[in-house]
Amino acid sequence: MSRPVERLYLDDLHVGQRFVSAPHLVDTDQIKKFAAEFDPQPFHLSDEGAAGTIFGTLAASGQHTMAVTMRLVVESVPLADGLIGIGTELTWPKAVRPGMTLQVFSQIVDIKPSRSKPDMAIVTMRSETRDQQGDVVQILIAKLTVYKRVRG
Amino acid sequence: MSRPVERLYLDDLHVGQRFVSAPHLVDTDQIKKFAAEFDPQPFHLSDEGAAGTIFGTLAASGQHTMAVTMRLVVESVPLADGLIGIGTELTWPKAVRPGMTLQVFSQIVDIKPSRSKPDMAIVTMRSETRDQQGDVVQILIAKLTVYKRVRG
Repeated sequence: MSRPVERLYLDDLHVGQRFVSAPHLVDTDQIKKFAAEFDPQPFHLSDEGAAGTIFGTLAASGQHTMAVTMRLVVESVPLADGLIGIGTELTWPKAVRPGMTLQVFSQIVDIKPSRSKPDMAIVTMRSETRDQQGDVVQILIAKLTVYKRVRG
Repeated sequence: MSRPVERLYLDDLHVGQRFVSAPHLVDTDQIKKFAAEFDPQPFHLSDEGAAGTIFGTLAASGQHTMAVTMRLVVESVPLADGLIGIGTELTWPKAVRPGMTLQVFSQIVDIKPSRSKPDMAIVTMRSETRDQQGDVVQILIAKLTVYKRVRG
């Protein structure tokens, strides 16, 4: 790699810390392919299937938006031991459509040291997935297990 | 279709109502393929990458478990207007490994009529994804928008 990637441990994190992902263009093929495999509902498969539904035209599965977000977060939040979630909360304020370019803006919002494991904490990260207009299409609150550089 | 599928409206739902999905076998190829596209972390890509991590051997991405669950829920909870979530909460009590057979057990836990839209309610569904031993690998709490058969 031409640029060394900083690998972050618990010691390196603080509340308020921010991370910004690369952009990702969502196209019709990606939306239909994901839906065919994991969420085969008419409004995620074609414009025709979406006609007459609350979507009107083709919209991405919320799980697809989450999967794309996961990829962007993995690439933009370089935790040394990986992004290991114990749980998440998700909301989808706006439908994702073909041609949207998504980008993820993450922020550490809480760090709660473990009582039983002194080298570990539960880190809460809030990740907003925004379209090219800046509108939020998904809010992800993830609780992650993060370890110190030197383990006890 | 040889068997008519019952299509459910808000009128047809009640708290306590249950739905059981078909089983789905998760194999190594599925785990690696999903991870390569959406969650390329070493412990989701190979046994070698998982060695020395908290997983030890290859484990599915939590988002993959969620995507498989979505498919099984779409096939087993026949809401007439589709499964349209406004938000979810997820936890992963146990890692999903190659060779596990997953099945989803869903239950309606709350129905909250909309104040502004008399033909709509927010329906809360709890879906447990269990392995072939009955152990819970994922708990999904989803808030869904569901409409009455006849709209106002």
